[in-house]
Amino acid sequence: MTARETRFHHYVEVISRANQIAASTELDELLDKMLELLIAVTEAEAGTLYLYEAASHDLVFKVVKGSESSRRLVGSRIGAERGIAGFALARGTPVFVSDPANNPYWDRSLGELSGLILDTIYCLPLMLRGQPVGIVQLFNLAPEVCDDSDELALIELLCSRLVTEVEKARLLAEAQRRERRQQALVEIISRLTTTLDRDELLDRIMSFACELLDVEATSIWLRDDKAGELVLQLATGYRRELMTAQRMPQGHGIIGHVVETGDTVTVNDVSQDTRFYRQIDAKSGFVTRSILCVPLRAPRIELGGQRGAVEGRIIGGAQALNPHDGRHFSPEDVALFESLASQAATVIRLAHLYTEVDNLSTRIIDAITGAIDLKDPYTRGHSQRVSEFSVAIAQELGLDNDTVYRVRIASKLHDVGKIRVPDRILKKRKGLSEAEFRQMRRHPIYGLEFLQENGLLELDLLGDSWQALSQHHERLDGRGYPNGLRGDEISLIGRIVAVADIFDAISSHRPYRPARPADEALAILRRMAGIEIDERCVEAMVRAREKGLILTQDERA
Amino acid sequence: MTARETRFHHYVEVISRANQIAASTELDELLDKMLELLIAVTEAEAGTLYLYEAASHDLVFKVVKGSESSRRLVGSRIGAERGIAGFALARGTPVFVSDPANNPYWDRSLGELSGLILDTIYCLPLMLRGQPVGIVQLFNLAPEVCDDSDELALIELLCSRLVTEVEKARLLAEAQRRERRQQALVEIISRLTTTLDRDELLDRIMSFACELLDVEATSIWLRDDKAGELVLQLATGYRRELMTAQRMPQGHGIIGHVVETGDTVTVNDVSQDTRFYRQIDAKSGFVTRSILCVPLRAPRIELGGQRGAVEGRIIGGAQALNPHDGRHFSPEDVALFESLASQAATVIRLAHLYTEVDNLSTRIIDAITGAIDLKDPYTRGHSQRVSEFSVAIAQELGLDNDTVYRVRIASKLHDVGKIRVPDRILKKRKGLSEAEFRQMRRHPIYGLEFLQENGLLELDLLGDSWQALSQHHERLDGRGYPNGLRGDEISLIGRIVAVADIFDAISSHRPYRPARPADEALAILRRMAGIEIDERCVEAMVRAREKGLILTQDERA
Repeated sequence: MTARETRFHHYVEVISRANQIAASTELDELLDKMLELLIAVTEAEAGTLYLYEAASHDLVFKVVKGSESSRRLVGSRIGAERGIAGFALARGTPVFVSDPANNPYWDRSLGELSGLILDTIYCLPLMLRGQPVGIVQLFNLAPEVCDDSDELALIELLCSRLVTEVEKARLLAEAQRRERRQQALVEIISRLTTTLDRDELLDRIMSFACELLDVEATSIWLRDDKAGELVLQLATGYRRELMTAQRMPQGHGIIGHVVETGDTVTVNDVSQDTRFYRQIDAKSGFVTRSILCVPLRAPRIELGGQRGAVEGRIIGGAQALNPHDGRHFSPEDVALFESLASQAATVIRLAHLYTEVDNLSTRIIDAITGAIDLKDPYTRGHSQRVSEFSVAIAQELGLDNDTVYRVRIASKLHDVGKIRVPDRILKKRKGLSEAEFRQMRRHPIYGLEFLQENGLLELDLLGDSWQALSQHHERLDGRGYPNGLRGDEISLIGRIVAVADIFDAISSHRPYRPARPADEALAILRRMAGIEIDERCVEAMVRAREKGLILTQDERA
Repeated sequence: MTARETRFHHYVEVISRANQIAASTELDELLDKMLELLIAVTEAEAGTLYLYEAASHDLVFKVVKGSESSRRLVGSRIGAERGIAGFALARGTPVFVSDPANNPYWDRSLGELSGLILDTIYCLPLMLRGQPVGIVQLFNLAPEVCDDSDELALIELLCSRLVTEVEKARLLAEAQRRERRQQALVEIISRLTTTLDRDELLDRIMSFACELLDVEATSIWLRDDKAGELVLQLATGYRRELMTAQRMPQGHGIIGHVVETGDTVTVNDVSQDTRFYRQIDAKSGFVTRSILCVPLRAPRIELGGQRGAVEGRIIGGAQALNPHDGRHFSPEDVALFESLASQAATVIRLAHLYTEVDNLSTRIIDAITGAIDLKDPYTRGHSQRVSEFSVAIAQELGLDNDTVYRVRIASKLHDVGKIRVPDRILKKRKGLSEAEFRQMRRHPIYGLEFLQENGLLELDLLGDSWQALSQHHERLDGRGYPNGLRGDEISLIGRIVAVADIFDAISSHRPYRPARPADEALAILRRMAGIEIDERCVEAMVRAREKGLILTQDERA
């Protein structure tokens, strides 16, 4: 074989090894094997490979071979303009340097990191369509390679063979990373939506944001329009005790700007930004370097029914501070944080809408309850107490959350039928005529009618709990009213409220007799248990009393 | 130059052209240029390129050159075992065929599609790590190429040079596609969460699912546990009129299985699945080929406050039918549909929770309103009518949704203070003593106290709307009660409710005088306008009356 033919076979062998390496779709593996091959071909003592990051104009250190001391630097970054590598990258063509320490581009601090005495450096920029992808540096090549321009050309060919693979593997790794972050976002969003409890919700938002963006700290600020301020709701990454209830005037600081304009703001060096509101750092001792600040933009929400839609508005803003590893915030970080913030704002709004309506219904029910109790001056506070007792019994019986909720509401309304009993009968108490007495004893029926006429019986929310109204005067022995139900015909809620009602009647002051102390009242209940009222409910009440959950009218005063 | 050297230069030139082509990161462009280069090198009349899809064991037709008639087949798929291509792919090595029509693997139906008279076919499977990636077929190669085994070897080298690029570009395209779908999912989820209106919500879920999965039809079924059935809520892609209110027994069909077990089921050929419930297709005329069915699993939702958490449960299931282009459902389709369904179930649950509590508060308020009106037999229905009139006036004045909502609630409660005025005074009407008269005129104050004592004044939801209670008997000239406010001291809501209240009083039957017709009542209001009551509100009411929105007690009967 001629020398030419030998070389041809050498070429084919090197290229076919490159083809094998190229089969790797995993970026780190590909880079590792590529550097290995280049070192083998050049018989170099050591080599490094950096990838270029356009956003920061940095070179990120990916692989090193032959220099133990440099291994710990993998992952670090240097400015893409530094040293001989920077010179080669700017030119876009390979640079061969012998005696590098005397080269004008030599950067001693970089050179010394390798721990080698450097004779030769071969810097091969990885270029694609004229743009830098990375750079390979080979140190102390075999002398025969240095003198062989054909061999150096082969090495260049090898790099240009592999640069397209590197680029694709890099794009793939980035796309996969973005995909994972999108998946994490979907996961986070679904976990957000499972709470309408505001504090829990804000807590989740902040910890998810910290995790998703990989930053040192996050905080969330909501508008208090009455005070004209932004109020810090929650911060992670700070020393919490320093950050509670911070307030700043609306329109101030970067966050103030974001809340006012609805624009996202990224500042990678806050020391250069005059909008930055330094008082918070001063108070907290936290040092803010860079900030990504997004508006919390609650959308228009369609509620349907009579209420229609509530309009969208900016309810506050969220901040992420100082990405780990000195990264800059990327456009991808911005997009993710915006998505998260927008969904967070929606759920904060939903939680607010739910809580408002829930408060409205609770307070309206309390109001109606109070009004009924007031019709008879001797029953003030009766319905509220009966409700508390009923809830305590229900919880003691181990009933589930939803049932306890129903017991709470229905027991408050147990006497609502009295709204249809004339005042004069309610206030009379003694010496009622037969007809008046009958009317008085119809209040459980009136109560049921009251719910029915107003469409309350058909609500899933209340289920069968209306039996609290119709059955709280029934007795196990069938001698109760209005229907004389017996034993199992009386629902559990009916039994619970009956026990609570009797206890409160005995332990409260009435015009015709004094209040009995709790122990005496419970003793009376125990004697009635099994005959008139349910034994399990009585025992549950006794246990609740032992836990301090049952307080009589007198004990509250 | 020797022939060997010429060949060497030819090799280098071809490989460097391949390197240029490889710079493309876009799959379709890469494949197109790759086939172009292979045709140029072999001087073939035509060529095709298919990619292999592992999930379906299909070859997907990607590029054709030199055959116009085949161009329309791009995108179609054939079984990966068919024809000479199938043979070559199974062997994993190139196959050269002359006189293909007499080859045992020849598949006439495939061959004729090209519209060419075929002399030679060169089938080059694209293999990576022993696995098929695709196949290139070159038709009617130049005779000198066919006889040159070195040239055929170069073509193989070219394919193996580019297959790693193809694989990476394909993985990249897939990752980008998955990323786009994830982004679409995030977008869809955020659009879902902006409605608590059940019908609107279901509608959005189904149309988003159809779009995301690219299928012919979707449907959503919810449990009706009382009836033991699954009820079709909504279907897209079917003829809607055939699909309304379909029901099927729980536990039947694939969807029944999914709802019962919580497992996702994918069936790519329902004719083979005995669980498939054929009655729905029979009724709708739709032909289901393949089905992807996922549970709607509502999570445990944290409500905070007294109610605590509501437990998670499977509330129904969602179906996607027949992917377009005869695709099979991919694992990615399954994951996306599961994510969407899980979020959909959450929002359906939130909508249900909100609506229940909203209904509770509305109905309780209606109940309290009705009870107050009933204290005086002549005011039956008064508060409801005043509320309707107030809402009509508010809408006519162009007030926003939230304000109208407040007007609706507060105006219903405008007389709630009467709950504290003794029945005998309310029923007396005539011949009230001075003291009784004063008490009667205190009902606006009582109403305000009623709200305040029960914590209703501090709800953001109601804002300042309590002025409807305290100011509805004030007059612009300062001669109203209880505070004798004048002009601007009276809030807009106070003015609105005053007009509505007076209109209803005039147009309703009272013991001491007959009802006046609407026109007469409005004429009276107009005379009072500017002196006692607000002119804009009166004119708004006149306009609302013209639109048919104002009906008197008599007109409703």
